[in-house]
Amino acid sequence: MAATASDFARRADSWNAGSFDFNQYMVDRAKLVNKALDEAVPQKYPDTLYESMRYSLLAGGKRVRPALCLAACELIGGDVQAALPAACAMEMIHTMSLIHDDLPSMDNDDFRRGRPTNHKVYGEDIAILSGDALLTYAFEHIARATKGVSAERVLRVIMELGRATGAEGLVAGQVVDIQSEDKEVGLDVLKYIHLHKTAALLEASVVCGAIVGGADEATIEKLRKYSRNIGLAFQVVDDILDVTQTTEQLGKTAAKDLAVNKTTYPKLLGLEKSREVAEQLINEAIQQLDGFDKVKAAPLVALAKYIGYRQN
Amino acid sequence: MAATASDFARRADSWNAGSFDFNQYMVDRAKLVNKALDEAVPQKYPDTLYESMRYSLLAGGKRVRPALCLAACELIGGDVQAALPAACAMEMIHTMSLIHDDLPSMDNDDFRRGRPTNHKVYGEDIAILSGDALLTYAFEHIARATKGVSAERVLRVIMELGRATGAEGLVAGQVVDIQSEDKEVGLDVLKYIHLHKTAALLEASVVCGAIVGGADEATIEKLRKYSRNIGLAFQVVDDILDVTQTTEQLGKTAAKDLAVNKTTYPKLLGLEKSREVAEQLINEAIQQLDGFDKVKAAPLVALAKYIGYRQN
Repeated sequence: MAATASDFARRADSWNAGSFDFNQYMVDRAKLVNKALDEAVPQKYPDTLYESMRYSLLAGGKRVRPALCLAACELIGGDVQAALPAACAMEMIHTMSLIHDDLPSMDNDDFRRGRPTNHKVYGEDIAILSGDALLTYAFEHIARATKGVSAERVLRVIMELGRATGAEGLVAGQVVDIQSEDKEVGLDVLKYIHLHKTAALLEASVVCGAIVGGADEATIEKLRKYSRNIGLAFQVVDDILDVTQTTEQLGKTAAKDLAVNKTTYPKLLGLEKSREVAEQLINEAIQQLDGFDKVKAAPLVALAKYIGYRQN
Repeated sequence: MAATASDFARRADSWNAGSFDFNQYMVDRAKLVNKALDEAVPQKYPDTLYESMRYSLLAGGKRVRPALCLAACELIGGDVQAALPAACAMEMIHTMSLIHDDLPSMDNDDFRRGRPTNHKVYGEDIAILSGDALLTYAFEHIARATKGVSAERVLRVIMELGRATGAEGLVAGQVVDIQSEDKEVGLDVLKYIHLHKTAALLEASVVCGAIVGGADEATIEKLRKYSRNIGLAFQVVDDILDVTQTTEQLGKTAAKDLAVNKTTYPKLLGLEKSREVAEQLINEAIQQLDGFDKVKAAPLVALAKYIGYRQN
């Protein structure tokens, strides 16, 4: 039976129900992560470079990826401090990808997180270079700042993040995305784009948190399935929001997909069916958490619901 | 006493004298490195992305950075195979920096290593993304492919490479370089640019080879001094070649520095004095190798001389 829009809105409230206060949790986590990011990338010479890096890195995103990383680490019983460098690295990579994707030669976006995009403020050259610096620093920061975790596990985190970011991950997704503009593509290509451009880094966030926390292989694979599902759902919902929300609500240009004639889930499946797909993905994700302690799993359950039912 | 141009040319021959055949050594090392790079970045989907990465990565550079990395590892008595992933990573980073520096919004170069630059062939979007992918893969490859070396040492290699590449290394150098165009800058700024834009990665190449080889701290610091000197000399010589050689001889646009009114060593100090500076840097570099086995040190001595006296 198809979920209606009002079903959807009603369920959206459910992630804040019960004893776990998701809103407060996300506020606290964002504070923790923002402080760590601010310290990890302090203002230095060359001024413009660091200003540009900090402009985008500290622009007040929702910090979903760091939150997932920290929550996965805690689910396993790991120390949140040990996962903080990896959590920050996820946000550095995410920020880099936004800066580069927004460039005139790519998506050509002027507006991001409610502010002018990096290259509109600092110029294309500095935007490319600050993206490069953030990308580099993500790996260096994990290697340098992760404490209380074996060097073998830290290397594994670096491998996981590398695969998620490069030519097998989000860069590959962005390339296929660019090449699919103004073309009719099928669900397989659309899924490839979403799995690589978005899901890969959400997956790495969860899996790296679990690795830092000391998870065994079976647990890592369960959490990989969880994160791949929410990753795909994240992008399906992004497609939905692009056609249902305003630029003001999104903090970035709305109806952008339509404007550039991009293939999206709503375009291929319609809005209601797309919502069903997102819901099913989220439900399957949450099922992966069944065997875990309910209290410890609460943040990942809530994060999955948030991703499925968010309004921006 | 100032070195004359003919002194300089005569000395240039000396790096090929004696029992060590430097030309053959570099040919053999380039073969080894090219094979490893070809295997590390095979052609895959998305086709254009990998073609673009391989176009620039396998464009037949001199492989100076990998050669330095492997030679430093062998100097310490390390296994050349153990240092090969780090050596390849140096070339990946170097290639990424060339692709991004050549972009229209940066140095706007159409010509590199005797061929059209990456963005002229694949477009700016793919050029930016293949640079991102190479940058990412450098770190992943070190973490994934380095064998027979402790995880702690591998992490240290990643930190060293990260610092050399990012906002404290070559990205910083490129930013200050861009900001210094069409400006009168002094020797201190010029030295900052050269140390960061060029010397940092040459330093990382040598130091990472030494770390993989198992070098102690005192040895690492000696080799750091060696590599910083040859790194600075490399760029001083680059400045000299820009005004003395043709585009054909260089395989990239000649007299580019003059065309964009860039501050260079020849402009600040004159040609002869610049040659003296390069020679002194090379001599001081070679002095760092005094305490080592002469046969094992021969490649690093020859590489230093090559960098100081090369013609392109």
